[in-house]
Amino acid sequence: MLTLAEALDAVLDHCGALPPRRVVLREALGCLLAEDVATDLDLPPFDKALMDGFAVRAADFDPSQPTWFKIVETITAGMVSTRTIESGEAASIMTGAPLPPGADSVVQIERANYESMGVTLTDPDFKLGRHVLTRGREMRAGEIVARRHERLNPARLGLLASVGLTFVSVQSRPRVVIVPTGDELVEPDQVPGPGQIRNSNATLLDALALKAGAFSRTTMIAPDEPEGLAARLRDGLHEDVLLITGGVSAGKLDLVPATLERLGVLKVFHKIKVKPGKPLWFGVGPARSLGQPGTLVFGLPGNPVSAAVGFALLVAPALEVLAGGCKRATPLTTFPLAIPYAHRGDRPTYQPSKLVHGRIEPLPWAGSSDLRTLASADGLASFAEGDRDYSVGELVPFLDLS
Amino acid sequence: MLTLAEALDAVLDHCGALPPRRVVLREALGCLLAEDVATDLDLPPFDKALMDGFAVRAADFDPSQPTWFKIVETITAGMVSTRTIESGEAASIMTGAPLPPGADSVVQIERANYESMGVTLTDPDFKLGRHVLTRGREMRAGEIVARRHERLNPARLGLLASVGLTFVSVQSRPRVVIVPTGDELVEPDQVPGPGQIRNSNATLLDALALKAGAFSRTTMIAPDEPEGLAARLRDGLHEDVLLITGGVSAGKLDLVPATLERLGVLKVFHKIKVKPGKPLWFGVGPARSLGQPGTLVFGLPGNPVSAAVGFALLVAPALEVLAGGCKRATPLTTFPLAIPYAHRGDRPTYQPSKLVHGRIEPLPWAGSSDLRTLASADGLASFAEGDRDYSVGELVPFLDLS
Repeated sequence: MLTLAEALDAVLDHCGALPPRRVVLREALGCLLAEDVATDLDLPPFDKALMDGFAVRAADFDPSQPTWFKIVETITAGMVSTRTIESGEAASIMTGAPLPPGADSVVQIERANYESMGVTLTDPDFKLGRHVLTRGREMRAGEIVARRHERLNPARLGLLASVGLTFVSVQSRPRVVIVPTGDELVEPDQVPGPGQIRNSNATLLDALALKAGAFSRTTMIAPDEPEGLAARLRDGLHEDVLLITGGVSAGKLDLVPATLERLGVLKVFHKIKVKPGKPLWFGVGPARSLGQPGTLVFGLPGNPVSAAVGFALLVAPALEVLAGGCKRATPLTTFPLAIPYAHRGDRPTYQPSKLVHGRIEPLPWAGSSDLRTLASADGLASFAEGDRDYSVGELVPFLDLS
Repeated sequence: MLTLAEALDAVLDHCGALPPRRVVLREALGCLLAEDVATDLDLPPFDKALMDGFAVRAADFDPSQPTWFKIVETITAGMVSTRTIESGEAASIMTGAPLPPGADSVVQIERANYESMGVTLTDPDFKLGRHVLTRGREMRAGEIVARRHERLNPARLGLLASVGLTFVSVQSRPRVVIVPTGDELVEPDQVPGPGQIRNSNATLLDALALKAGAFSRTTMIAPDEPEGLAARLRDGLHEDVLLITGGVSAGKLDLVPATLERLGVLKVFHKIKVKPGKPLWFGVGPARSLGQPGTLVFGLPGNPVSAAVGFALLVAPALEVLAGGCKRATPLTTFPLAIPYAHRGDRPTYQPSKLVHGRIEPLPWAGSSDLRTLASADGLASFAEGDRDYSVGELVPFLDLS
């Protein structure tokens, strides 16, 4: 049975970045840029007024005393001036408008007094280039302004728009399909009959995949019957990642591993040394059309807490790599325990826990089907294998699921 | 001119939670629950086997020695047993299946040896109820399992599915419309002519609104001309929040405030003591149909960094309240400065900065149009009003925009 670290290595060995896709800017939010982007023009594209005021020639202006100018025109943003500013002249100018030829500085409107046919300006802090952003000060045509592998946050998307992009090449978000299995399952809108329970895994995993930035869809419940199961799983092998829940234990109707192998999915491992989540199965499907690599197939346990733990520990890091990110484990942060904890068992345990004022409170729970306790938890505290009594204040790794 | 704190109070005074909406579970991800949810049945709904193995009567089993049982049936998940387990009998049972009448404990398959017509079980750790989850152990029919105001993460959505919900009532995500204004603007796919620049604000604000969890759409560029501008703004008054960029300074063509007031939008304030972002205008539109409160209208400055700062400081907290959250400022975290910083000016300043190993590096920038510097920043460092030289290691509040 593999340790978690060995299992993660085995999963990531089969993961690579998906081919880039061109998408409209708003769909690129949160994605990694897949190309270097250069600006097609200087920004600003002209010497630009930064204040509402008057464009003048610095040589005309004496900061030590009020100076009178003749107003010769008005320039608003989007306009282009029609004449050159000569000595002793000023143009009334609005923020964002281009300076007229001849002018090199702006005195803001708050420092102006209108007087007979002109304006008297006073600005003791005046210097050449005052309140002017010179052409190309932010960037020069041809310069790279955004680089491959940068994550596209709102400011970067705005920057791409400012240099003329409406589409951009980004690392693709992976496509995930979720197939719940088990004859004991009914959909959430049904009242379970004797021996039945509701399918909560599809909702849970769909939301986990969406939160991880993937495209996700779920299928109907697949039956514990070889042909029906095979049909549902075959469909899933068109996507980048296939998540199956249930059918991976040692029971009579745990048909998932054999069915997957029959469909050409190559088993990489089955079972990991983790509690909950031990029966997890992982394999890689046959190569798809257009040279796409085989689907990553995770057979997750049927109990929802086990499925969520398997997702956090192995599926989430795989999705990160498919989306162009680094190969690494889901990050854990260490916090002190708020209460004592007795660990028993030969598997590392991920225990639903609350994080209260930076201290971990492991929650009492009814085992791996206990979604209610997971729903009231902030994440999972991680305890190493082996029997051990942990004391208050001991530092324990914590996986945030909030 | 209002301080930022006064402006935020004024904005939040006009904000309340939007009416709840019923949505399918996957659309509720990240939303606040608007109702208490009770379970309609016990969970588990029956005494459930937690292991593949054999269901037996504890009274028959001696933990100190191997015990032989007659196998009388096989129960898989989803099945219901057909007969009562009598003394000396065992049922082969799969994980998740209901215990048959009479049985109260499970011995796992790893501890079984098949022998003449039956099975010999050995389990020194055996006790009554071993590997059985009794009916109602997770929750009892009628119990509240999720409460109003809880944020719906994946585990909580899974829990709602497990108690029979496919739709749920949540606090609505606000609807935002973005209207860029200015005759100097062209759309990103155009090459700007003389005096023109590209509209990057729509992309920037749309992404900021999406990231904040709102529904968002943008309109075409509105002209600096009263009738065309009024038409575009009138449309925006159907949504919960209207974000306008440009046209709010003191310039000749800054028509936005007057046009909004002509459309019945009540001005709450104009200008705040913040750098960048001073000319920000805020008002509230007339009541909408169906008793909806008036649109919150933010006239943001036209320079993109000013618009982003206005969004982070005032719009984001408003969206949080509309979505059912608490009234509070965008949270700032304090970090030490990595390099000295000289602050000059009579307004509190939000300076694009990098966060490197937990230390703030304010970035040199070309002012409030410099989206390139904002795109390379991790957030904004906040410096108080007044001239002051900050030293390396001084603690400075930081607003994360990554």
